[in-house]
Amino acid sequence: MKPQPESPTLPPNPLPADRRKFLTATLASVLGASALARQAGTVQADDPAATAPSAGQGAAKEPLMSVHDDSMQWPPGWVGKEEIVMLLYPGFTALDLFGPHHMFVLMMGAKVHLAAKTLDSVLTDTGIEVRPTIAFEDCPQAPTILFVPGGTGGTLDAAKDDATRKFVANRGSRADFVTSVCTGSVLLGAAGLLDGYKATSHWITRDLLSEFGATPVDERVVIDRNRITGAGVTSGLDFGLKLVQDLRNDEYAAAVQLFAEYDPQPPIDQGSVAKADPQISGLLMHMHEPFRQMVRDLKNVQ
Amino acid sequence: MKPQPESPTLPPNPLPADRRKFLTATLASVLGASALARQAGTVQADDPAATAPSAGQGAAKEPLMSVHDDSMQWPPGWVGKEEIVMLLYPGFTALDLFGPHHMFVLMMGAKVHLAAKTLDSVLTDTGIEVRPTIAFEDCPQAPTILFVPGGTGGTLDAAKDDATRKFVANRGSRADFVTSVCTGSVLLGAAGLLDGYKATSHWITRDLLSEFGATPVDERVVIDRNRITGAGVTSGLDFGLKLVQDLRNDEYAAAVQLFAEYDPQPPIDQGSVAKADPQISGLLMHMHEPFRQMVRDLKNVQ
Repeated sequence: MKPQPESPTLPPNPLPADRRKFLTATLASVLGASALARQAGTVQADDPAATAPSAGQGAAKEPLMSVHDDSMQWPPGWVGKEEIVMLLYPGFTALDLFGPHHMFVLMMGAKVHLAAKTLDSVLTDTGIEVRPTIAFEDCPQAPTILFVPGGTGGTLDAAKDDATRKFVANRGSRADFVTSVCTGSVLLGAAGLLDGYKATSHWITRDLLSEFGATPVDERVVIDRNRITGAGVTSGLDFGLKLVQDLRNDEYAAAVQLFAEYDPQPPIDQGSVAKADPQISGLLMHMHEPFRQMVRDLKNVQ
Repeated sequence: MKPQPESPTLPPNPLPADRRKFLTATLASVLGASALARQAGTVQADDPAATAPSAGQGAAKEPLMSVHDDSMQWPPGWVGKEEIVMLLYPGFTALDLFGPHHMFVLMMGAKVHLAAKTLDSVLTDTGIEVRPTIAFEDCPQAPTILFVPGGTGGTLDAAKDDATRKFVANRGSRADFVTSVCTGSVLLGAAGLLDGYKATSHWITRDLLSEFGATPVDERVVIDRNRITGAGVTSGLDFGLKLVQDLRNDEYAAAVQLFAEYDPQPPIDQGSVAKADPQISGLLMHMHEPFRQMVRDLKNVQ
């Protein structure tokens, strides 16, 4: 990409020319700007950014997840070849998965798979119908990350489903990182993957992880060796960004965070049991006692 | 649902019996616990919670978005009949939409539509293929909320696409609330819906809203009369929760926030231009100058 004229409203860019060229090419690839630049005719053919796959409207055929270019010379920490397997099952909670998914697909070079038993669309518990990108049998045998989202009844059914539970146990046994958000950790537990590990879950099921041999921990993201588990639903954003930071570096994670404008400002502040009205948290917990019992029963499923 | 035995680890529930029964039934319906309770055989037929539609695995056929029960006597603020229209177009940014979607579907009684030109699946800019639930021509004429997600090249194409832009302008002219997250406000602007309004956008395009007659405001969520716009991508969570709070009440929003465990704790703190390394924000802005020029050119599309 040709240097753009400095805007009078922007600070002067203090990066050395080489560093700037590298960052520009890298971020352009990651964030899809190269395609837009090409559309506008501002990219030269000899510019590395011009060789990177495109996003934007091109994304409709060539999504960011496919970004990979072996011809580029990337400094350490700025590109990878991760194989990330994100599990889909009927009734999973959409946001559990789409939060970290947004962070993962911005890791240049990573391949992000949405894996299900078949390639048929999967209906989430909030009515979004999502198409898998890969079937279990075609999934990488030893993924970099195995990720399991949560849900309620759908998660119980997935844990009881032999094909799904065994897929999780199998890939989890060889994955570099075995991960979950929300009650996804219940499914990890039912698959035998949390025995002897510290872990977390949605606050309603967190203590029940002990049924699967885990030590429940009340933290937003819990890391114990290669097990990385997040708390309820929205923890997936913090979880995803933490993984970007660990798999790449602080600078890369900062660029992803800024591009996602992840500077949360909730209009109210009752997002944890510690902060919430005990009337509401108590009722939610009591209401879910039947669900909690069904989670306990899962320990006999294997 | 029968009263559950008090757990020794929970605080005693101080709510009066009537209030408790109401909250239990309400939250059970909203959050899908009633289906699980029925599975466990703990719900009596005369219990209002038992009459509510189910979620959980049932969600695979009967998602939460369909929750609605005219036979219930709900206190003011706890149920509504909102018709929420969320726009899908090729290359939209998935998380822009799925964040607020998670909040909207928990508003009992609300109908949440995923609207596109046709019912064919739509590929987002991060490779998630999503199926619309309704085509433009079948959409409510005067929705409670019209919501437009952002993107990059896909958003430009949507703004230039007559059918999409005119749909936005048409429903926007009669919607109770005209809303967006991220560069969705660019599409609102191109449809003529922000002229004379304060609004925000992704930080890279925020100042350009002036091209469409809007006054750009650097806030996470900007409310000007019935225009409600969010900043980049992840602002959708704050935006969605704010709308739940306004359309229902503080208590309802608190329950939704706690159930989504929305207590954000990003591992790094560079999620806004004010907080970010100026080298990274400056480069991202410079790189997007071609995109910004194409956004400016949209003012002539109408």
